[in-house]
Amino acid sequence: MIVIDWGTSSFRAFRIAIDGAILDRRSAPRGIMHVEGGRFAETLRDHIGDWLKAGENRVLLSGMIGSRQGWKEAPYVPCPAGAAELGAALVDIPFEGAQGNVQVKLVPGMNGVDASGIAEVMRGEETQIIGALAAMGGNGLACLPGTHSKWVRVAGGRIARFTSHMTGEAFGALRDHTILGRMMKDGAPSDAAFDAGVARSAEPGGLLHHLFGVRTQTLFGKLAETGGASYLSGILIGHELRAELGGAQGETVHLIGAPELVALYARAIAASGAKAVSHDADASVRGLVIIGEHAQWS
Amino acid sequence: MIVIDWGTSSFRAFRIAIDGAILDRRSAPRGIMHVEGGRFAETLRDHIGDWLKAGENRVLLSGMIGSRQGWKEAPYVPCPAGAAELGAALVDIPFEGAQGNVQVKLVPGMNGVDASGIAEVMRGEETQIIGALAAMGGNGLACLPGTHSKWVRVAGGRIARFTSHMTGEAFGALRDHTILGRMMKDGAPSDAAFDAGVARSAEPGGLLHHLFGVRTQTLFGKLAETGGASYLSGILIGHELRAELGGAQGETVHLIGAPELVALYARAIAASGAKAVSHDADASVRGLVIIGEHAQWS
Repeated sequence: MIVIDWGTSSFRAFRIAIDGAILDRRSAPRGIMHVEGGRFAETLRDHIGDWLKAGENRVLLSGMIGSRQGWKEAPYVPCPAGAAELGAALVDIPFEGAQGNVQVKLVPGMNGVDASGIAEVMRGEETQIIGALAAMGGNGLACLPGTHSKWVRVAGGRIARFTSHMTGEAFGALRDHTILGRMMKDGAPSDAAFDAGVARSAEPGGLLHHLFGVRTQTLFGKLAETGGASYLSGILIGHELRAELGGAQGETVHLIGAPELVALYARAIAASGAKAVSHDADASVRGLVIIGEHAQWS
Repeated sequence: MIVIDWGTSSFRAFRIAIDGAILDRRSAPRGIMHVEGGRFAETLRDHIGDWLKAGENRVLLSGMIGSRQGWKEAPYVPCPAGAAELGAALVDIPFEGAQGNVQVKLVPGMNGVDASGIAEVMRGEETQIIGALAAMGGNGLACLPGTHSKWVRVAGGRIARFTSHMTGEAFGALRDHTILGRMMKDGAPSDAAFDAGVARSAEPGGLLHHLFGVRTQTLFGKLAETGGASYLSGILIGHELRAELGGAQGETVHLIGAPELVALYARAIAASGAKAVSHDADASVRGLVIIGEHAQWS
């Protein structure tokens, strides 16, 4: 089987053995926003054509490739759901292989509602969670930090509910398009400034007030200009954590994602008194393999 | 006397009679970021040269013209302070008038600290507050909404302390530089969407989570694409209000600023159970006149 984590900015393909082992892997900066004119089939042939020629005939995709801007829009599977529900809801994509018999299927995203009944959506993270389920013991709280961070409650081996935070994207917009960025200088990330930002998030006044303080702390020399980005990051991640962990300080948070970002979140979680466990970045591969085992291949 | 409210984007000049009445007014899009090469003296002559020729020889400026990016950087006056302290701390600017005897002075900004000891600064808003003091009875809570909103506690006719929120600038960055803006369509501001955003800000989950909901509410058709900007505005203003009014729901908020923005804040304050009084936009002119009366003119 071939499994592919195909997101907005990157394409990561894995050739998987019968026993689930990774035989080969490839990645390319060919996320859906870098594929022009809907040429997804061509992109697939370009990158894994030789695996198909070698006889692989099952391809499972997950991520934003299943969104409206992707190859084909896959309907969301509602919470609660696990690998069985996702595997039963795969979407077939017509694809002409070299030998005519390749099946390409798409893992659907999931939707739900938050505590106030407002809609939530994810695409790709559900697959990472499925891949981390065993390590989580089938229960607990997972956090997948990123552009749109996800906090996912897992119960009985299924995804029970989740919430999103626009932390990563807000960070980029505030750093690159407000006065805050004009006072920042490039430099190595600063742990001390990040920690100060996380601590700041616990003080009164709210996020919008804390943002203004990034400016004045630099203006009055309390914060080095090279530490501004780390301080801002700490404030935003701190606010995200406080919103999610307000009533659950004793809980363990399972972090899944890119190692640098997972390390930052682990640092902030430790500072706020909760516990964090970091999972490796191949959770999506394991998730795809597990979901693929629940699929109806012809 | 001539008084000038000279900010980042606009220049507003007023010719004032001995009794404080406004004799004439002029405005131009010549804020400090639109004046090239430090040509502030030339800009002044261009716009009020005829008033100077007619015999006016006292010019008082306030706003970002006193910042590092302005004509001359004026040190901050610390809280608490009122018209007397500001009038005693005016900064002289050398200026060659047509008849050689024009005095140009600059109102300094103010600084302070928030409840956690983090620095606060303002330039221009202190003058607006001085102008609104009489209408406020010398005591109370004022809000000056904008790019960087200010909440100012006034006591005994002086500015006691204040806090800032990056609400306006965050709104612009999020609307113009995140996925939220890509789902918005231009349209008339929507009161219903704004109210929904204000109500949303009271729900659990935090600001970063509420931002993501702007996307899903549009995605699932719960919010018209033309209402997205108003909904986002309501969420941000609602969070600002809740941070400031958390423990003071019974208090009256004195709103000072541009009429459209004051109307939005008044609407949000009413929805959150507090009372708002709106002041007119000429508060800065009155403030400049009052501070000018405390100045040492030669």
